[in-house]
This record gives sequence, structure tokens and C-alpha cells, in this order.
Amino acid sequence: MARTVDFNADMGESFGDWTMGNDAALLDVVTSANIACGFHAGDPDVMARTMRLAHDKGVGIGAHPGFADLQGFGRRRINLSPDSLRNMIQYQLGASLAMARAAGSQVRHFKLHGALSNMASEDADLARTCYRAALDVAPDITILVLAATPMQQVAEDLGCNWAGEIFADRAYNDDATLVDRKLPGAVIHDAGIAADRILAMVTENAIIAESGKRIATRVDTICVHGDTTEALDIARAVRGKLESNGVRLAQFGTS
Amino acid sequence: MARTVDFNADMGESFGDWTMGNDAALLDVVTSANIACGFHAGDPDVMARTMRLAHDKGVGIGAHPGFADLQGFGRRRINLSPDSLRNMIQYQLGASLAMARAAGSQVRHFKLHGALSNMASEDADLARTCYRAALDVAPDITILVLAATPMQQVAEDLGCNWAGEIFADRAYNDDATLVDRKLPGAVIHDAGIAADRILAMVTENAIIAESGKRIATRVDTICVHGDTTEALDIARAVRGKLESNGVRLAQFGTS
Amino acid sequence: MARTVDFNADMGESFGDWTMGNDAALLDVVTSANIACGFHAGDPDVMARTMRLAHDKGVGIGAHPGFADLQGFGRRRINLSPDSLRNMIQYQLGASLAMARAAGSQVRHFKLHGALSNMASEDADLARTCYRAALDVAPDITILVLAATPMQQVAEDLGCNWAGEIFADRAYNDDATLVDRKLPGAVIHDAGIAADRILAMVTENAIIAESGKRIATRVDTICVHGDTTEALDIARAVRGKLESNGVRLAQFGTS
Amino acid sequence: MARTVDFNADMGESFGDWTMGNDAALLDVVTSANIACGFHAGDPDVMARTMRLAHDKGVGIGAHPGFADLQGFGRRRINLSPDSLRNMIQYQLGASLAMARAAGSQVRHFKLHGALSNMASEDADLARTCYRAALDVAPDITILVLAATPMQQVAEDLGCNWAGEIFADRAYNDDATLVDRKLPGAVIHDAGIAADRILAMVTENAIIAESGKRIATRVDTICVHGDTTEALDIARAVRGKLESNGVRLAQFGTS
Repeated sequence: MARTVDFNADMGESFGDWTMGNDAALLDVVTSANIACGFHAGDPDVMARTMRLAHDKGVGIGAHPGFADLQGFGRRRINLSPDSLRNMIQYQLGASLAMARAAGSQVRHFKLHGALSNMASEDADLARTCYRAALDVAPDITILVLAATPMQQVAEDLGCNWAGEIFADRAYNDDATLVDRKLPGAVIHDAGIAADRILAMVTENAIIAESGKRIATRVDTICVHGDTTEALDIARAVRGKLESNGVRLAQFGTS
Repeated sequence: MARTVDFNADMGESFGDWTMGNDAALLDVVTSANIACGFHAGDPDVMARTMRLAHDKGVGIGAHPGFADLQGFGRRRINLSPDSLRNMIQYQLGASLAMARAAGSQVRHFKLHGALSNMASEDADLARTCYRAALDVAPDITILVLAATPMQQVAEDLGCNWAGEIFADRAYNDDATLVDRKLPGAVIHDAGIAADRILAMVTENAIIAESGKRIATRVDTICVHGDTTEALDIARAVRGKLESNGVRLAQFGTS
Repeated sequence: MARTVDFNADMGESFGDWTMGNDAALLDVVTSANIACGFHAGDPDVMARTMRLAHDKGVGIGAHPGFADLQGFGRRRINLSPDSLRNMIQYQLGASLAMARAAGSQVRHFKLHGALSNMASEDADLARTCYRAALDVAPDITILVLAATPMQQVAEDLGCNWAGEIFADRAYNDDATLVDRKLPGAVIHDAGIAADRILAMVTENAIIAESGKRIATRVDTICVHGDTTEALDIARAVRGKLESNGVRLAQFGTS
Repeated sequence: MARTVDFNADMGESFGDWTMGNDAALLDVVTSANIACGFHAGDPDVMARTMRLAHDKGVGIGAHPGFADLQGFGRRRINLSPDSLRNMIQYQLGASLAMARAAGSQVRHFKLHGALSNMASEDADLARTCYRAALDVAPDITILVLAATPMQQVAEDLGCNWAGEIFADRAYNDDATLVDRKLPGAVIHDAGIAADRILAMVTENAIIAESGKRIATRVDTICVHGDTTEALDIARAVRGKLESNGVRLAQFGTS
């Protein structure tokens, strides 16, 4: 049976009169869209528009909650109590669920954004609080975790649907963490290299570190960025490479 | 069979460190709570806390959406396109639905807040847009309408569950609109008078105008305010009067 | 003596990670920048950056306050009491004054944004409230008014520094109001036509309506938009046409 | 010559329809008011109202900027770049300066709020960034520093006007830091004890730690809280005790 993998990107990050990203182009490449929920980006109009577009193109809709920090785009760390984290998650996820329903669709997956994701990848308790919050509201939702991090362990412990995610354009350390953006080679700019690398990881079911080390893990979904021309090129190259090597791209639970 | 009527009040209007209202006291008097959804008042923490408290006390939870205008408490009119109105409503209602579920409960009713409610009571098209938005997301929800206004007609046309609402502490004109707050007698301050008046309206299934005129209508729920000591006294007096005259107080759909 | 005129455009309308407009290119064309104050657009970082850039290029800095409505970009009408209007204006202008000082510069002019400007152009009392608020804080500031509207009359009555403004890319009715955007010809897309028209108005000290009618008025500044390539072309064409016909472009009070 | 000391409290912390604190009562007790600037609390209307009231009662007006975090009341730490900190400070201080001028008064002092203050008391670089930002805009302003902390050293190095502050209701460790709120005795609830203690510190020009240790320092101003009845009682007791022992209460620079 052919190997199947999901392909996801962040979207719906415009706000009011401000446009961000190239959602329409990206929706032709990916199979799942992580749609901002109005706290760090997006607003009800942007959410509705993005969800309808995703639905029309057969792309899976995901809720992508972040901190309530529009000016900081959810990239600044804010320490919240577990209760506040839970409430913040459930509020955003609930808004997404309703708007997806109104768009004739549904929310299939859940992915933390920005600083909230970074914090969850370092702190299993925080990840557990966020994931439980989501599952209380949508028990069948698929949670995207950074593969081979504490996020994955938490998802396994919770016994929920989850998908292990790898990045198309980032180099990895030997412990499965990402190479610091400030170091040379941390971000992959060459579409061909990115595509070859992703094909190898999907085929081997492993993260391949910069050193060549293999870290065995489930690889269920590949994250691409699409806000630059270069990033869109990488996304297209990855998709092309995978498909021409017999890997089918499909959203979670539809393979 | 005994006459049954619902008794509702606005709640969950605190925000962050700022407290508003006396929700705990009011929850011992009413049967339905209209809980702000974070746009004009409330935040995810306040919503969660208020919903749990309402649930524990057996009070029905309602979504009470308003304009995204915290400083103006949703009392300033903002002209939005029908699409934006729909998205704004679905976002807030969705957040409420999820948080009520997380609190082990559900959202039973829907009531527009402040300027949004005033605008809907004057503009049937706007009311229809808001109600349809809610019903797309929660088809079985009960919509609270100001009895004998265009809001009621819209709800009837939509064929949805609805409840006709009268006010405990406001005088009515002969056309079922409220007497302007600036006019003498517009607001009823005497608990005894308010209680007698509400009993008569519930018993007669009619709005009783200042002039004494009866406007026949369904009277399904009575709205009280509880943010002052006086208002809380009125709420208690109304409840006492109704119960001692054989009217049962119960939330919608549970009689 | 050569005729001198100012040339202004809105800037500093980015917010957080969202970019809007092409401020750097526009600052090479205009002589005055209307810089958003953080309520409808802009944030402290954007303001500081834009002010430094304007100062470096010798472009005059103006405060451009609007309604506190980020999602609506200050284009939705909000009814505020005169006191609230005054406070909102003084808050935004004060922030601008301090940030301009920190940038080694100063705020030279004041222009209302969006719906607030539209409302002031129709309502002399509202205009007076806003202008007085500004003058209480910065008595020598130059107030930009739509030429030949009630705004101009208010500024004359107040005896303050003011500048009459005309639009480079909009057609006028016979009463000096703008032709409704929905009507054909309301917006001028041809750079050559716009440039010829502006030269005639500056030379004749009159607004030239679509009908050809002349409305005599002071023409102190020309407003251009620069958020599209076309608009930037118009701005450049207007500047070139004026300069090649001996009209000097310079900010207020520097001629 | 009689010893003179200033007496300060936080005010203007209401927002929109939400009231916080008892500003009117407190303004009869203190000599300086730290007025929130609209980012963590306050809004332009609240600022204007509070400033006019302070001015009418002869109480000095101070700018009290904090993080842009209304829901968290500025008590959550947010990491900002030095540039963003500077811009945020200058924006808030500028708004305050203009509104004080419009109230016929002026801003005399500057005090950091909440998490921003806590961070500055631990990090001299951050304190320096904030103080320089303020002084760039208002070179003569008096900066309130927690006495005997790195904040004081920074103010001394900058050569600006500054005032050393002690707390009326908090116990001190031997290194001049505050005893952790979670420990017994950290907060002083007895008005008489607080008053005696403050008199001793003012007389001895020293912080008196829980252990009895004296830490010599300038004591220019005493901070009281006034949001509870108990706190207001402490404020009144401290004032009475100081005055009956010949200590004059007066705002900075007016002795």
C-alpha cells in the first residue's frame, strides 16, 4: 500500500485591512490548513473567508490557537495559569468549530501557534493542559505534535488522535530539536534539497538530523511555510517530489 | 396546569481584574443567565467561571454576544455588513458552545446585547442576519426576542425556538417599545410595583403599557437587572410574587 | 513669488507584523506625512520607525488620529460624546508629540482619519470639538481641513493655523463634496489627468468640479494615496507636473 | 527644617464601564497620583477624569505606564526589545503629558507599573532603557525608583531627578527586596504597625527590614494602596502619624 502523508501550512493570518500570506496559492499545494483563531492573527471575517476557501479546495481545516497578542503575532511568551490556558484554548477552538460548521465543513485538527507551541514543546505539563482543553471540547480532533518531542509523548499518554509533524525547511539537531535560527544552515532555502530531505524522512519514518543521525518517529504531516515566494517554491517542490515517488498527499483520516 | 415562566439576567460581565455585577447573588434568583462572550465584556476566564457557577446552581446558560467594543461595553452602534455580523455572531456563539460543553453543560439560549440588540429591534433584516447566524451553528437554540417587536416576527418567520421577553423594571409605550430612559417613570424603582406589574403581564399574556393598554403577546421570560442593590431587590420581589401566585419559574424547555 | 504648495499622504499604517503601504517610496514624493497614532492603525514601533524615516527625508510629521477600531481601520462610524472625542484626540496627539520629539523632530500638522474625518466634514460641532482638543495640547499646530467644507469654516472661526486640502485622485461635486465612490468617474485612475487637474486647481486657487464649475478656495496641500502602484504613479506625476510648472512643493510654514 | 516626604498611590485604573479603586477618597490622603496610561488600565476618559480630580485636589500627577495587557492588568511579564520598550514608554508618557496639559496641569513624576516595574527592579539595563525613554521626552520629570535597588543606581547614573520609594504595607528582606507575598507577615494589615514603621523609616532615612536591620537610603516617597477599606485605613494612619510627628507631606519639588 502506498505511503500517505499530510501536508500542512499556517493560514488565515490576515487581520482587518491587513493582508498576510498567500493563502489562495498555498491552498493548491497543501492538504491541511492551520487557521488562526483571532487572538494572535485572523478575525471572524478572515476565518470565515479562509475556511470557505479551504473547504472549496478540499483542504482540511485546523484550529491554530495562540496567545492574545495581536501586536506580537503570538510570538511573545506569556505565562498563564493552567486554568487560563485551558479557557483560552477552548474559547478559540470553539469559535473555530462553529465557523467551520457554518462553512459547511468541520475542524479536523488542532495545532498550537508561535510562543505557545514553543512553550508546549519544552513543557509537557503545559502541552497536556492545552491538549486536554482541546479534547474536552472536540474529543475526536487530531492533535499535531512536533515529532519526537515531549508533545508527542503527551499525546500518546492521552490516547488521542495525533499526528507527528516535521518541518520542510528547517535543519534538526541530534535530539530532534530544531537548529537555532541564528546558526548557519538552520533554514533550508534550496527547494531541491528540502524536497530530497523530506522524501527521505517520509520514506524512512525518521527525522534526519544535520549530522546524518536518524531519529525514528512517526511522520504523519509535513509543515511548510508559504508567506514568501521561496517558501511557496519549497512547498511545491516537496509536493512534486513526494508524488513522483509514489507518496500520496492526503489530510488526516482520509487515507 | 400551572403557568411557567423563565427569569433571565445578564452576567459574566467582569473583565480581567475588573468586577461587574453580583453574579453569585443573582444566580440564586434567576433561571437563565445571559453570559457575555468576550467582545463587549467577559473574557475566557470569566466565561468559564460564570458558566460553571450557573451550571452548579441549575441556571440555564445563554450566549450573549455584542459588538467588539470593550471600552464602550457594546453600547455604541457600529455598522457592519451582514457578512461581518454573521461571522461575529458565529465566532462568539461558538466560543460559548465550547466553553459550556467544557463546563459539563450546554448553551440553551441566545440573546443579543446592547447596541446590537437595539439595532435588531428596529431592523428586521439585521435581526434575521443575527438569528440565522446563530441557528446555522446551533439549530435548536432558543432565541430571546423583545416581545411584540420586529425581532419576534423574524423569529416566527424563521420557525425556530424563541422566547418572548418583557422587562421587569421598564415602562412600555402603547406600541410595545420601551419608554425613553430620559422620561419620568421610564425606569421602575419600586420592587412592589414591579412585581405586581410582572404578575399581571404573565397572567394576562400581554404587555401592559403605561397607559394601561394591553398588547397581547407571548410572555416566556422576564428580564431583570442585578447590578445594583435595588435591582437585586426587584428581582427577588418579582420572583417571590410570581411563586406565591402559583407561577413556576423554570428555564426554557424544562417545564 | 513662486506658488508653494504642500503634498501630503497617509503613512505609518502598518501594525505589528502586518505591513501596509509603501512608506519609503512615498516619502520621496510628498512633503508631509500623516502618521497613524495607534488607534485605527500603527503601533508605537511603527510610529517611531515612520517618524524617523520622515525626519531623515525632510518630510513634515503630522498626527493622524482615528477611532479606536483596528479591525475596521477607523472607517466605521462610532458615536462618541464630545468629552470622549476630546480625550481620544488628546491622547493620540500627545503620544505623537512625544514620539516625534524622541525622533529629534516635531509634529507640524494634524489631520483626522477615516470615519472621524467624514463625520467632522459633515458636522461643524464635531469638527470644532476635535480641533479644539488638538489646539489645547498643541496651540501652534496646523490643522488640515477639506477645503471649502464646514471643517474650513470651523478652523477659520477658531483663528488657528490651518491648511486647505484637495484630493489628487477624486472628482468633486458642485458643492465641493466628493463624488460618491460608487459613481463612475469618482476616482481618477489616469496619472496625466490627475496631474493636469491639480495644476489647474493650484494655479486658480479653486476646486474644479466634474461639471467644470470653479469653487474658489485656498489650496494649501494636496492629498495623495500611495498604497497601490497606480496611486504612487499619480503622486509622482502630480509632483512632476507642479514642479515643471514652477510650483514649489514644501511643507507648511517652511515656504 | 521640617522633614518633608511625598505620599503616592496608583489611580486611574478604571476602564470603560468598569470601576476600580476609590480614587476620590485616596486623593484626600496622598500627595502624588500614579495614573495609568491606557495600556494595562485606564482609558482616555478615565485619564482625563482622574487628572482633573487630582489637579483640583492639589495632588501631583504622575505617568504610570505598563505593558499593553488589559486582561492581565500589566502583571504578566512580556519580553520586548529595548526599542519596543522605549517606544511603548514614550507613547504612554506622551499621551499623559498632553492630557495633563489639557487638564491645566502637568506630569511631575514617572513610575513603572506591575510586571514592567518588577522586571526593571531586577534588570538595570531594562530600567535604564525605560528611564532614558522617559527622559528623552520629559527631561525634568522625577523618576520613582524602589529605594536601594538597581533602579536607584540607574537613576543616579543618569543624573536625573529621582525619588526613592518605600512601601507602607510590605515587609522587607535584609537586601532591601520585598518579602515574598506568600510568606507570613509579608503584607502588613495593621494600620498602627504600618504607621509606626513608616515614621521610623522616614526619620532614620533607612529601610527597616523584618530582622530589624537598617539599610540606609533616601526615603522620598511612600507608596500606599487604596483599593480596599483596610488599605485606605493604613493610608490615613500613615499620614496622621507622620503629620503628628512633624513630618510634612508634599509632592516632589514643592517642599
